Amino acid sequence: MKPPVRKQIGVIGAGNCNKETRSLAEAVGKEIAKKGAVLLCGGLGGVMEAAACGAKQEGGTTIGILPGTCREDANPWIDIAITTGMGHARNSLIAQSSDALIAISGEYGTLSEIALGLKMGKPVIVLDCKWEIEGIYRVKDPQKAVEFALEIIEGC
Amino acid sequence: MKPPVRKQIGVIGAGNCNKETRSLAEAVGKEIAKKGAVLLCGGLGGVMEAAACGAKQEGGTTIGILPGTCREDANPWIDIAITTGMGHARNSLIAQSSDALIAISGEYGTLSEIALGLKMGKPVIVLDCKWEIEGIYRVKDPQKAVEFALEIIEGC
Amino acid sequence: MKPPVRKQIGVIGAGNCNKETRSLAEAVGKEIAKKGAVLLCGGLGGVMEAAACGAKQEGGTTIGILPGTCREDANPWIDIAITTGMGHARNSLIAQSSDALIAISGEYGTLSEIALGLKMGKPVIVLDCKWEIEGIYRVKDPQKAVEFALEIIEGC
Amino acid sequence: MKPPVRKQIGVIGAGNCNKETRSLAEAVGKEIAKKGAVLLCGGLGGVMEAAACGAKQEGGTTIGILPGTCREDANPWIDIAITTGMGHARNSLIAQSSDALIAISGEYGTLSEIALGLKMGKPVIVLDCKWEIEGIYRVKDPQKAVEFALEIIEGC
Repeated sequence: MKPPVRKQIGVIGAGNCNKETRSLAEAVGKEIAKKGAVLLCGGLGGVMEAAACGAKQEGGTTIGILPGTCREDANPWIDIAITTGMGHARNSLIAQSSDALIAISGEYGTLSEIALGLKMGKPVIVLDCKWEIEGIYRVKDPQKAVEFALEIIEGC
Repeated sequence: MKPPVRKQIGVIGAGNCNKETRSLAEAVGKEIAKKGAVLLCGGLGGVMEAAACGAKQEGGTTIGILPGTCREDANPWIDIAITTGMGHARNSLIAQSSDALIAISGEYGTLSEIALGLKMGKPVIVLDCKWEIEGIYRVKDPQKAVEFALEIIEGC
Repeated sequence: MKPPVRKQIGVIGAGNCNKETRSLAEAVGKEIAKKGAVLLCGGLGGVMEAAACGAKQEGGTTIGILPGTCREDANPWIDIAITTGMGHARNSLIAQSSDALIAISGEYGTLSEIALGLKMGKPVIVLDCKWEIEGIYRVKDPQKAVEFALEIIEGC
Repeated sequence: MKPPVRKQIGVIGAGNCNKETRSLAEAVGKEIAKKGAVLLCGGLGGVMEAAACGAKQEGGTTIGILPGTCREDANPWIDIAITTGMGHARNSLIAQSSDALIAISGEYGTLSEIALGLKMGKPVIVLDCKWEIEGIYRVKDPQKAVEFALEIIEGC
């Protein structure tokens, strides 16, 4: 009866984003669900919403780790809302609770999560990232990003 | 396609407990799952493990909000592990992320979660509680505890 | 040149309080400063403000660990403001960063700090407390509270 | 009797560093104290220790916001230890509680603090930084770093 442990993949990126980025995020979310992993994110808009929407299209499970205290702040594709009430300090929880992180575009908040993930020794895969940071893995394709994340996790 | 929002009920109590308390916690977990709510807990042993085990017996979803950084610290019935790495400060997240709290026996950690829940305006239902605190709802029966929690949430 | 380590005493209590409680808190703050210890508190009004005001009257040092992100939320007697932006989760930091806690009256927030302090093994001294909790030390006099706190810390 | 509010400047950087970086950090700490500001840091070794040591040489006040729960983890130049017990999530508190941040060299942890500071709208001044991040101010001289930080804070 013991349930198998599902991998938890964090998807991070800007709360506002253009169509192209949204499309990448949705594809990442779909792939995470198809592979049977759980999608973690910050629970808000932009990349977070697109990724969660993608995961739900494939019957996945979505977790939103929110900065505020209101369930209603979560985008509509979030199954489970962790309302931390901790503001930006919640970025650390997203990195810590993910087996691997996939960053899609993003601004300072995303950069903080990338850095925290690397500090914690998590695999950090990036799609369309403007910063040069040693230790991140750059990929171009959403499917590859998820496959690669799962491969590295397995190898840990 | 938009998923319905499921209620999140936090079950709090001691990390070590006797058979009787364990049995109460398991019954609470079962009832939460039967009612279609999500079980949140601290993810460790004792009451947390028994409640999660009960929920899984009924096909429920279980979330563990852990004090440490290791997925492996979670009891085997936890579906989703939020590894906060925040120690006792994670107690606040359990209270904040729950629509209602059900406390079963417990010691100082549980007392802190009861107090935080009340401070946040959450309904706090207790089974077998040794402290006299204004504002808590005392019930004797696990089924009643869950029914009552859901009733109060609906009324909010 | 190495500075001696000063003891850090947390004063906890309601953000709104009557004259009598305020007077107790001020006396506790004065005594902490006289004894050369640092006063930690939640940085807001009521007991926190009165205690900080008392400490400043005696030339003490006062630290406010605030729930919000604004320095301006601190009462005027706070020397150093730690603006956590973490809401109620900051209660845990107050307990954790104090060598001993002195609780004066208070409501649910104070109760959570008492419980967290006890969980962390901190000495918790209470003046005018309405809850019956095993492990707390009840005293009647502000001077006694501070003396007792320092005695227990020394004995640790 | 109301005390004037002192500016709080966060100094961030690696926990291990070479002599040159250490010397920069010490000079930054000295300047912060000379200007009457409070030095905030992560409380551990390397840049944090050198900066705190510098500040104490000039009679300054030093605050360490530590990841762990032990006062003893703080370097010997820390006056006030905030033992968060929150691990990497404490990085957010350092950024949030600082009126401005000065980064000296550093690795992933420092990068997370730079990013969080920028996200929070704090001025971030860097000495010897390997990353290219829009929004940071690069300076070459420790005195200039502190002067510049205070100028920007005043202008806010």
